[in-house]
Amino acid sequence: MPSYTAPAKDMAFVLHEMLKIQDSDIPGFNELEPDFTSAVLEEAGKLATNLLQPLNEVGDKEGCKLENGVVRTPAGFKAAFDEYAAGGWNGLDCDPAYGGQGMPYTLATAVAEIFSGSNMAFTMYPGLTHAAYSAIHAHGTDEQKAKFLPNMVALKWSGTMNLTEPHCGTDLGLMRTKAEPQDDGTYKITGQKIFISAGDQDMTENVIHLVLAKIPGGPDGIKGVSLFIVPKIEVKDDGSLGNPNGVSVGSLEEKMGIHGNATCVMNYDNSTGYLLGTEHKGMRAMFTMMNEARLGVGMQGLSQAEAAYQNAVVYAKDRLQGRDVTGVKNPDGLADPLIVHPDIRRMLMNQKSFVEGARAFVLWGAMMLDKSHLNDDKNAHGLISLLTPIIKGFLTDIGYDMTVQAQQVYGGHGYIEEWGMSQFTRDARIAMIYEGANGVQALDLVGRKMAQDGGKHVMAFFEMIKTFISENKDNEALANDFLNPLKDASKDLQSVMMYFMQEGMKNPNAALAGSTDALHMFGHVCFGLMWSMMAKSAQDALDNGAADPKFYNNKLATGRYYMARMLPATKAHQARILSGADTVMALDADAF
Amino acid sequence: MPSYTAPAKDMAFVLHEMLKIQDSDIPGFNELEPDFTSAVLEEAGKLATNLLQPLNEVGDKEGCKLENGVVRTPAGFKAAFDEYAAGGWNGLDCDPAYGGQGMPYTLATAVAEIFSGSNMAFTMYPGLTHAAYSAIHAHGTDEQKAKFLPNMVALKWSGTMNLTEPHCGTDLGLMRTKAEPQDDGTYKITGQKIFISAGDQDMTENVIHLVLAKIPGGPDGIKGVSLFIVPKIEVKDDGSLGNPNGVSVGSLEEKMGIHGNATCVMNYDNSTGYLLGTEHKGMRAMFTMMNEARLGVGMQGLSQAEAAYQNAVVYAKDRLQGRDVTGVKNPDGLADPLIVHPDIRRMLMNQKSFVEGARAFVLWGAMMLDKSHLNDDKNAHGLISLLTPIIKGFLTDIGYDMTVQAQQVYGGHGYIEEWGMSQFTRDARIAMIYEGANGVQALDLVGRKMAQDGGKHVMAFFEMIKTFISENKDNEALANDFLNPLKDASKDLQSVMMYFMQEGMKNPNAALAGSTDALHMFGHVCFGLMWSMMAKSAQDALDNGAADPKFYNNKLATGRYYMARMLPATKAHQARILSGADTVMALDADAF
Repeated sequence: MPSYTAPAKDMAFVLHEMLKIQDSDIPGFNELEPDFTSAVLEEAGKLATNLLQPLNEVGDKEGCKLENGVVRTPAGFKAAFDEYAAGGWNGLDCDPAYGGQGMPYTLATAVAEIFSGSNMAFTMYPGLTHAAYSAIHAHGTDEQKAKFLPNMVALKWSGTMNLTEPHCGTDLGLMRTKAEPQDDGTYKITGQKIFISAGDQDMTENVIHLVLAKIPGGPDGIKGVSLFIVPKIEVKDDGSLGNPNGVSVGSLEEKMGIHGNATCVMNYDNSTGYLLGTEHKGMRAMFTMMNEARLGVGMQGLSQAEAAYQNAVVYAKDRLQGRDVTGVKNPDGLADPLIVHPDIRRMLMNQKSFVEGARAFVLWGAMMLDKSHLNDDKNAHGLISLLTPIIKGFLTDIGYDMTVQAQQVYGGHGYIEEWGMSQFTRDARIAMIYEGANGVQALDLVGRKMAQDGGKHVMAFFEMIKTFISENKDNEALANDFLNPLKDASKDLQSVMMYFMQEGMKNPNAALAGSTDALHMFGHVCFGLMWSMMAKSAQDALDNGAADPKFYNNKLATGRYYMARMLPATKAHQARILSGADTVMALDADAF
Repeated sequence: MPSYTAPAKDMAFVLHEMLKIQDSDIPGFNELEPDFTSAVLEEAGKLATNLLQPLNEVGDKEGCKLENGVVRTPAGFKAAFDEYAAGGWNGLDCDPAYGGQGMPYTLATAVAEIFSGSNMAFTMYPGLTHAAYSAIHAHGTDEQKAKFLPNMVALKWSGTMNLTEPHCGTDLGLMRTKAEPQDDGTYKITGQKIFISAGDQDMTENVIHLVLAKIPGGPDGIKGVSLFIVPKIEVKDDGSLGNPNGVSVGSLEEKMGIHGNATCVMNYDNSTGYLLGTEHKGMRAMFTMMNEARLGVGMQGLSQAEAAYQNAVVYAKDRLQGRDVTGVKNPDGLADPLIVHPDIRRMLMNQKSFVEGARAFVLWGAMMLDKSHLNDDKNAHGLISLLTPIIKGFLTDIGYDMTVQAQQVYGGHGYIEEWGMSQFTRDARIAMIYEGANGVQALDLVGRKMAQDGGKHVMAFFEMIKTFISENKDNEALANDFLNPLKDASKDLQSVMMYFMQEGMKNPNAALAGSTDALHMFGHVCFGLMWSMMAKSAQDALDNGAADPKFYNNKLATGRYYMARMLPATKAHQARILSGADTVMALDADAF
């Protein structure tokens, strides 16, 4: 069975040495002293290793069952959920006015990686609750907040997000679920929603569904969509539970992975709904939470890659097979461990340099979100809006690839479910699809974000790189191994941006045919920047006589790997993009 | 539920227009007139579409079961197996002396793609039987051949290959299974083998296991391994069945995919075995069949990509979502079909240009094998030996990626088992692992094949490209779109070969750290050559006033896509390789 250990030391390095969160002027960050964050990460790590990780395989094997309309979660989930709730983990970054602890989102993101890494399917139950909490917190009336939030923060009630319908996923304008206005100001919701993660379970006494629906007579398409709070069981004014609300689970989907999470077909039959925010502005309400939600999915890609990597390392050190070509390393054994072989190293270094780069990127992104919210920093908001589709798309695409490589380290055993490596790939696969399939992320990046505010945020991104390079140009430890490749890759990316500006005006397909490649290219450049920043911090620590030079030297070596071996992927993406749309669009549909 | 249609037209193009098999001087090829091969492919296609494909999902859902020591295959497999056997499909390229039809391996390979594309797990039962047939045919005595082959060709008996043991996969020198010589010239085989595909089933009356084992007192390691024929039930001299032979199934593996195929732990307990070939030369006997077996696994990668692609196309044309950015294409519908979107096109073109290139490569490789066997052509043998690890590794790595992209076209539905796209990825995943994990293929390529016969075959490969380019340099339809990119990519590959020669002498890790990248780079160059050859054939057909110009124009357009958008991957691989081994090997094992 696989194991999981929270990468707390690496998180501490990113938080305190690279991002220096404790020195930030973001409100609340000065509380985040290393001792405090270590204590939080350590506690989260214990829960993850001892309670959630052992349930990961159970969840995969048992899955969820629908019995007489009731969803049954796998054995042990309810007890674990109660312990998770009792620990107050769901409220870590929630508003103290509703029982939360008011910590920054940045810290909550590190904690979320730990829980997700140990058990992604389980963690989605509180994760969706948290997302619904955020929506109500951002757009609800005081009365709505008082009525729903305390129990959601405490996980007495859970939450869900209902967007997709059988005939519409990305194109939500085609939505058919109806919301009929009632005289008392409520709405009657009727329709079917599909792919509802954590749609129901047997762990909470109520489920607060957020449902997108159309009010008859409103604008056509996406502009006529509104957002509603639809409790599974009605909540009386005194907060006690009333009657069932016409909300039922039609069926559970049988999926490739995340079996421990109930993916439901939800039926709403004249259910009472409460408008959240403004009529017909449902999509806008969704969008305000989208950066956070997408960063969270990017984090899932990282989390599964990290968990798979940890187990690939265990196997590579343990399994004896073949001899080191440069000389026997394990003379007392009949063979050397796998880890001596360069191609095994290559796979492990791919994974290691990816997960560490991804962690830095996710936490840096979370800090930008905190800055944009807590400091009301418009530039930070613009920058993280630009980079959100990259965090979501790149981290889940490459994160998935890394779970496949981790599985490959196991040879034949990687294909056997008992060893657990298959589950990492099967679970990680969904993150490329939900919360906007990665092709939609690429469209968002190229078709919207790059040009937002006159391209200001793209320019700010390149300026950030330029500034970093110029500030560190005399740092010999960085120059050849980090700054030069970063500069090169950044130039390649600029050439692509230029191409999109020039060609995209004439033919939008020229840009869109290169959208996924641009997202990946951008992702690599972001990782190049993150690794350069980490390298600087590591070198600073070494220069200051750090107590654990090995850690910092390994950090530098891992970064050098990324810069030399991962970053050159930009060359291929650049060539693909600059080849234009003609070959992509040449065939008639009937030629496929 | 997914569907499958044999790509018979595309196969005919490769066989008759690109490879021109009917004009070849290889014995037997002159029988392969287009009418004849079409009839064969059409019949295979019917069986695949009507019988095997509908069982693909059944096999995945039901899997195999071990009941009181007996393997139960999924419902319908036995009846399908009987029909498959009755059709004589297993003997298509087998020796007429034992009931086969004596057709070339090239034709059998095209047929195998069709069966594998419709149901990979099912097709492995006859596939392993065929592999065991080949081994006995190549190395058996006349008596052994007469005793075992007719029933194996007729699929009255099946066959398996037993190599792996719990503690040794790639490193077979660690093998523990023993073969004790008996006075009557037989051996008593005792030991445990794992991961035995098609290890047992309820469809044939006997199973002929080929088992690697060590004769006590023989040389250490891999040089002391011998190959044995071990029937599940003893075969009397008159060919009738005798007693059980101490062969039992310990358990079935629960796997990520190919659930319809029984992957067995096989226990041999004093089982009677018959030496196949020479004592201690078991590995050599295995190696003579390896090119064929590995080409077959590469074909599996192609076959799953093809099947997944076909279904991605169906969905992309059917699913209405969003509008074409250049103008509405389906004004009568609420949205346009997915296929209008450039990023969907990109994924479909990746798949289409891959599967068509892969098919050409596999059939070209099969023809080289026929040439090496039937014409005893040493150059053809050297060339296909060089390219075999590439066919195996590249086609299964990229084939898997393509099943993932096909799944991605389905959005959320791709993750739901009911739609069948998950199965293609889960089934395709094994092909990267078995018959030598792809890292081992890369090691075989860089550590052995490239230097074989003084590098003669690598030189012949580049010479082949050079000759093709020079012969067609005045062909304007080819020059810019095909020949120039082929020349560039080929040059990049040559620079890498040079690097390996120079650096690999000093430090073997410098070559081995780049082995997988070299395999992929090589693969792309091979595809570049295949596409150039196909483009020439398509252009010739157009120049000659072919009846179906659309087919040939589409072929050219698909080739242009490959050259412009897939081939540039060589740039990234080249940069990775030339960065050397230092960053790959920098960390101590305890730093992971």
